[in-house]
Amino acid sequence: MTPETSLDHFFNHLAQTTEPQNLYAPVNYIMSQGGKRIRPQLVLLAAELFGATTENAFFPATAYEMLHNFTLIHDDIMDNAPIRRGKETVYKKWNSNIAILSGDVLASMAMQQLLKTPCTPETLISMSNLFIQTSIEVCEGQQYDLDFETQEEVTIEEYINMIRLKTAVMLAGCLKTGAILANASQKDQNALYQFGINLGLAFQLVDDLLDVYADTETFGKEIGGDIQAHKKTYPYLLALQKANNVQKTQLQHYFSSEQYDKKEKFNAVKTIFDALRCKEETEKRIDEYLIYAYKNVEETSLNNEQKETLRQLALKLSKRSK
Amino acid sequence: MTPETSLDHFFNHLAQTTEPQNLYAPVNYIMSQGGKRIRPQLVLLAAELFGATTENAFFPATAYEMLHNFTLIHDDIMDNAPIRRGKETVYKKWNSNIAILSGDVLASMAMQQLLKTPCTPETLISMSNLFIQTSIEVCEGQQYDLDFETQEEVTIEEYINMIRLKTAVMLAGCLKTGAILANASQKDQNALYQFGINLGLAFQLVDDLLDVYADTETFGKEIGGDIQAHKKTYPYLLALQKANNVQKTQLQHYFSSEQYDKKEKFNAVKTIFDALRCKEETEKRIDEYLIYAYKNVEETSLNNEQKETLRQLALKLSKRSK
Repeated sequence: MTPETSLDHFFNHLAQTTEPQNLYAPVNYIMSQGGKRIRPQLVLLAAELFGATTENAFFPATAYEMLHNFTLIHDDIMDNAPIRRGKETVYKKWNSNIAILSGDVLASMAMQQLLKTPCTPETLISMSNLFIQTSIEVCEGQQYDLDFETQEEVTIEEYINMIRLKTAVMLAGCLKTGAILANASQKDQNALYQFGINLGLAFQLVDDLLDVYADTETFGKEIGGDIQAHKKTYPYLLALQKANNVQKTQLQHYFSSEQYDKKEKFNAVKTIFDALRCKEETEKRIDEYLIYAYKNVEETSLNNEQKETLRQLALKLSKRSK
Repeated sequence: MTPETSLDHFFNHLAQTTEPQNLYAPVNYIMSQGGKRIRPQLVLLAAELFGATTENAFFPATAYEMLHNFTLIHDDIMDNAPIRRGKETVYKKWNSNIAILSGDVLASMAMQQLLKTPCTPETLISMSNLFIQTSIEVCEGQQYDLDFETQEEVTIEEYINMIRLKTAVMLAGCLKTGAILANASQKDQNALYQFGINLGLAFQLVDDLLDVYADTETFGKEIGGDIQAHKKTYPYLLALQKANNVQKTQLQHYFSSEQYDKKEKFNAVKTIFDALRCKEETEKRIDEYLIYAYKNVEETSLNNEQKETLRQLALKLSKRSK
């Protein structure tokens, strides 16, 4: 059984509460959709690397996947997103009130799942503190993301801080949780956390690029979504910074007007991105985070083979095509 | 310093996080509004009765008040409620997205606050499990409450189960938490929990009555709100049960039509309630819960003076006029 298979097995055998139906049907709906399951895999991987029992790690692994799905339910309300993983979002399939409440209950269920982990009370409290800190920071990241929609000037530094909170801290939290469960040293825990932060930043920048440059066939979803939604992504902020006056006016115009044909708008923006070499510059930044991540790997007490596993993971996530 | 004073002191000195402002300003806004602060007082009372250090109990006490306020932020979105404690609700003062997110962060901050309690890891985990169970059940209660708005037939039993989840479990959770912190016996913990359930049920039925029968001057808020919102309260369900065909048709008509003058509707419904002696019947039920609560007090190992404190508390909350 590969880790993924047994993880799916674990998800499929989570006790499915059913009443009240309008509360738990959305929870079971989103949890059974699958998705990449990156977060639980990070928990399992870190736990395994530092020698914890995989079966025990299933509890925090599932907890983080539940936490992630809770944020998706609420984010989709805020973003008016109709589709997620090729299916109707919870708020669209039911309604906003049900989505608020089923998100709320899923967040608590996530914490409840974490509290079931078979380990010492001290380990459990350490994992709980990290879990809650992560939950709080993810909210902060989402708030900055919402703020940026109407904020005229967003610096690249502000953007990186936002994606650190919104995306990276959860990947970092997953990795550190596995290490905590395995009783890894404080130094190893911190190195793994920083590794997760750098991995997460690279991961999100790849996401930003894929929205513009993905191969539609392998990507599996429509490209250009961020441009349509006027999201101030890393390539966009970079373009603004490097643009001459004409390009800057054009960009700002496209990112504030609803009047253009989707395809025309996408092509116009992409042409500016290309002219300013935004893809290459973003890739350069991704590689920088990758190098930082490699350094964090070096700081751990793991053996070479184990270190290679982490490096391969970082490489895979920063060079993904979907 | 009375417990209330020092509790206010504690609330006023909670570290106020400020960034992102749109996330934390609503949190600080609702937490500084005051309110009855019943929940933290229950934690403190139970902790004190069973001999815990009051200062340690401030942490779970604050945690439950934060949890309660999180539910208010989200409930007010769902209920489209513009006013709470005489002030604009969070979603009205800011917007729904900000209210969703600041509610989310407040729920996590509540758990974080609980995890700061100075006590043994075992005690902390026991309190955490109860806190999360409570959070989950409160969501279930709110979902039933939403469901009942459109559900044609609601039995009295279903209604009691809803208010048990929505209101009573949190009061019970507060009391039991104080007992856990004080290392009370399992028997005492359970007796206090059941006492809280009965207290909470009585508390909510009093709320239902006050909506119709409160003295406007002492009540401090507009009466008849539940009737305007077509809430299927205990007196309403009782009235439906006891009504003759004419009264039943009238009631159902008033509870589905928006066309009436507020005052006219209120008076018409109240006349039916009076004719069917709903006030007296509800008071009878309140007294029953009060007697159950007294029995739970007897099951504890507390001394007579301490038992009297709990009985007085139950009496005060079931005979309140606001």
